[in-house]
Amino acid sequence: MTEIAQYVADHADDYVADLTALLKIPSISADSNHKGDMTKAAEWLKARFEAAGLSSEIVPTAGHPIVTAEWCEAEGAPTVMIYGHYDVQPPDPLDLWTTPPFEPDIRDGKIYARGATDDKGQMITHLFGVEAWLKTEGKLPVNVKFIIEGEEEVGSDNLDKYLEEHKETINCDVAVVSDTSQYAPGMPAITYGLRGITACEVTLRGPSKDLHSGMFGGTVANPLTGMSQLLSRLHDLEGRVQVPGFYEDVLELSPEEREEFASLPFNEQEFCEELGVESTFGEAGFTTIERRWARPTCELNGIFGGYSGEGPKTIVPSFCTAKISCRLVPNQNAEKILSQLEVFLRENLPAGLMMEFKTYHGCPAALVDRNSPYLAAARQAISTAFGTEPVLIREGGSIPVVGAFREILGIDTLLLGWGQDTDNLHSPDEHFDLGDFQRGIAASAELWKTLSGI
Amino acid sequence: MTEIAQYVADHADDYVADLTALLKIPSISADSNHKGDMTKAAEWLKARFEAAGLSSEIVPTAGHPIVTAEWCEAEGAPTVMIYGHYDVQPPDPLDLWTTPPFEPDIRDGKIYARGATDDKGQMITHLFGVEAWLKTEGKLPVNVKFIIEGEEEVGSDNLDKYLEEHKETINCDVAVVSDTSQYAPGMPAITYGLRGITACEVTLRGPSKDLHSGMFGGTVANPLTGMSQLLSRLHDLEGRVQVPGFYEDVLELSPEEREEFASLPFNEQEFCEELGVESTFGEAGFTTIERRWARPTCELNGIFGGYSGEGPKTIVPSFCTAKISCRLVPNQNAEKILSQLEVFLRENLPAGLMMEFKTYHGCPAALVDRNSPYLAAARQAISTAFGTEPVLIREGGSIPVVGAFREILGIDTLLLGWGQDTDNLHSPDEHFDLGDFQRGIAASAELWKTLSGI
Repeated sequence: MTEIAQYVADHADDYVADLTALLKIPSISADSNHKGDMTKAAEWLKARFEAAGLSSEIVPTAGHPIVTAEWCEAEGAPTVMIYGHYDVQPPDPLDLWTTPPFEPDIRDGKIYARGATDDKGQMITHLFGVEAWLKTEGKLPVNVKFIIEGEEEVGSDNLDKYLEEHKETINCDVAVVSDTSQYAPGMPAITYGLRGITACEVTLRGPSKDLHSGMFGGTVANPLTGMSQLLSRLHDLEGRVQVPGFYEDVLELSPEEREEFASLPFNEQEFCEELGVESTFGEAGFTTIERRWARPTCELNGIFGGYSGEGPKTIVPSFCTAKISCRLVPNQNAEKILSQLEVFLRENLPAGLMMEFKTYHGCPAALVDRNSPYLAAARQAISTAFGTEPVLIREGGSIPVVGAFREILGIDTLLLGWGQDTDNLHSPDEHFDLGDFQRGIAASAELWKTLSGI
Repeated sequence: MTEIAQYVADHADDYVADLTALLKIPSISADSNHKGDMTKAAEWLKARFEAAGLSSEIVPTAGHPIVTAEWCEAEGAPTVMIYGHYDVQPPDPLDLWTTPPFEPDIRDGKIYARGATDDKGQMITHLFGVEAWLKTEGKLPVNVKFIIEGEEEVGSDNLDKYLEEHKETINCDVAVVSDTSQYAPGMPAITYGLRGITACEVTLRGPSKDLHSGMFGGTVANPLTGMSQLLSRLHDLEGRVQVPGFYEDVLELSPEEREEFASLPFNEQEFCEELGVESTFGEAGFTTIERRWARPTCELNGIFGGYSGEGPKTIVPSFCTAKISCRLVPNQNAEKILSQLEVFLRENLPAGLMMEFKTYHGCPAALVDRNSPYLAAARQAISTAFGTEPVLIREGGSIPVVGAFREILGIDTLLLGWGQDTDNLHSPDEHFDLGDFQRGIAASAELWKTLSGI
C-alpha cells in the first residue's frame, strides 16, 4: 500500500465526521428560507478546502454562490476540473424519513441524510483525495480546479454564465464528476455516454371556441381527432420513429459495446415489476439496455385538449396541445431533429386544422471515446481502489453540465459514480454506503496519479 | 278573424305585462340563494294558471317544484301535454348586459331579460293560448295538461321520477314543447327530429407511475402514443367513423328530406366565419345541414394525459384518458353503439397497454313521423298565425325530455319554436321578439283547434 493509500485508510473516521458536519447544513437551494444555510455550506467548504491545502473562493452569482478551489503547482502536468454541487433537494415528505434528514445517522454501514450521495458525499471524496496527496507528498501530480455549485437541483441557472466568463482561466484538460452511480453493488462503473434531449410543443387549432357537439358535431374538423391522426404517424407499432431522417445521424453501437451491454446483469422481469408494466416495449432489433442508453426516442410527454373533468361534456374542442421531447444519441443534432419533426408534422397535418409549433432549448448527447487516455486512467484508478475492474456504461438521461463543459470549455467529462441508484436520491431515507464512500476517496487519490501520466 | 284570434290580438299589452312580471323573478335553479325565487315563480305561475281558468298544483320534488295545471273537460277529445320550464340560466357575466337581466327592458320591439326566450317567454304562450279559449268559448276543444318544471337548466334530475310516478294519470296523446327556435326570422319551423347521444371514457394505462423519460424512454409503451394510434383509427381522413357496424342501423334521409334541407337558406361561408374555421369538414357525400342534423358522429370531447403545464417535462406518462361521445340518429341504439365501440377499441389496442372503458347514460334520437296528424295540425296552426308555412327541420342536439316522453309516456313531441337561435340563450342580453311572442300565442290558440280534429 502506498503512503497515500495508507493515509486515506487511516483517516476513514475523520472523513465520516467531516461529511456528517456538511450533511448537517440544510442547504436546500429551492427554498429561500434556507439562503443562510446555503452561505453556511459554501463557507464550510471554503474553509475545508483551505485546510486541505488549496486556495479557495466563494464566487457570488445571481443565485447561490459557487465555491471554487485550486492547486495548480504541477507545472506541465494535466489540469483536472472537478465539478460537484453542495445544494440538496428538499427533504419532503418528512414523515417518511426514519431519522431526520439533516441529522445524519449511521445504520448498517450506511449514512442516512439528505445529500448523503447526491452530491455532498460523492463530491467531497475528491477534496479528501486531493488532501491525501498534499498532506503526504506536499504536492499533487496534476493541477486541480474545483467548481462546486449551489444550484444543481434548481437548474444550474448561473453556471453557464460563470463558465463563459472564466473559460480562459479555467483552461483545463478534462472534467471529473461524481454524481452518477455504480452499475450495481460491487460493480463500479464509468459512464461514458449520455443521451441528449430536445423538446417542442404542437398545438392544433380548430374552431375559435369550444362548440356544442350536438349543434355542430360532424361539420368541422375536431382538433383531438386530428392530433390523434397526426401523432399516430410518429411511430410504427413497434415504437420505431417514422420521421424521415430521424435516425440518419445516429452513431450506431459498436459490436464491442453491444457485447459488453449484453454481458451486464439485467433482469427484465424485475425491471418490468419495478415499472409496473407487463412487458417492455420498443424499437425492434435492440435490447432494453440498448434502447435506454443508445437509441433515440420521440416521446409524447403530455396531451391535453377539451374537457378533462368528471363525467361527459359534449363539445367539439377548440384546440389540442401535445408536448413532445426527443432523447438524442451521439451525432444527432437537436435543431435538425426538431426541424425534421416540424416538417413531418406539417406534411401530415389533417385537413381543417391549423398547427402551431414551439421549440424548447435542448442539449446534445455526450460520449467519451472509449479509447480516451483519460478514461483508461479512470479505469485503472477505480480498479485499484475497488479491487475490481469498472464496467463501461451509458445512461439514458441527460446531464446538461456535461454538454456545457464540452461546448464552453471543449473538454470531456469522466462520470465516476461511487453510489448506487438505490440510494434514494431525491427521496426519503437518502443514504450512502460508507464502504463506497471510502473506496471513492481511495479511487480519487489514485486518479490524480493515473491522470498525471497523460 | 275568429273571436279567439281577436281576443289574443286585443290582449297583446297584457301578455307583455304578465311576461314582464314573470321575468322579474330571478328563478335561477343553479343558485341556492335563489331558492325563494324558485318558489315565488312557481306560485306566480299557479296563480296565473288559476286566473286563466285551469286547476293548478305545485308538486314538490327532491329539488325545485314542478307546476302542473290542467283543464280536462273535453270528453272524447285528444289530450295534449304542454311541457316547459320556469327556471333560468345564471345571468353572469353581469357587466355584459345592456340592462339588468331581471329588469325586463323593451328595445326595438324586443324584450330583454334572462329567460325572455328560454323558456319563460315561449312557455307562457301556451298559457295565454289556452286562456283565450276559456275566456271566449268557456271551454277548450282538447284536454290540456301543463307540466312546467324548475330544473331544466340543471339537468331535469327529478322529472323522470315524476313522469314514472304519474304516467297513469298524465295519460295523454301528444306533447307540445316550445323551447327550440324558428329556422330564421320569418321562417317558423317544426323540429321533427333530434339526434340522440351516448358517451364513454377510455383510459389506457402503461407504467404504474410517470417515468423519467431519460432513464426509461424507449423501453416501455407510452400511453399517449398508444392512445393516438388507437383514436386515429376511429375515423377515416374525411371524418367517416370506422367502427364496424356503426352505420348499420342508421335511418337514411329520404330524398324528400334531402331536397327540403337543400332548399333551406344556408350560407356556408357565414357558418364558417361564425365558428372561426376556414372550411367545414365531415363525412363525404353529405351536406353540412345533413351532417349536423341527420348523421351520427363519434366525437372526441377531451384527451388528457401526462404533463399539461408550462414548458417541457420529460416523462413517460402513466396513463391517458379520452372522453368520447356519439351523436345518434334515428334507429341507432346507444348500448349497441357503445358495445361496438368497445370491441373496436379492444381489438385495436396497441401492445403494452391496458384499457379501461367506462360508459355514461345516453338518450336515443327522436323523430316524429312527417305524416303524423299531430304534425299536420301544428303546421296548419302555425301557417295561420305566422302567415307562412313552417319549414320542417331537425336539430343536431339532444333534448332528453323528448326521449323521456317517448319512453315513459309513449308519446311524440311537437317541438314548436317561436324564438330565434340568435336570441342569446344562455348569454348576456337574452331577448325575445315581441312579434314572435304574439304570433306564438296566436299559433298556440290555433293549435288547440287543429289538434281537436284528430
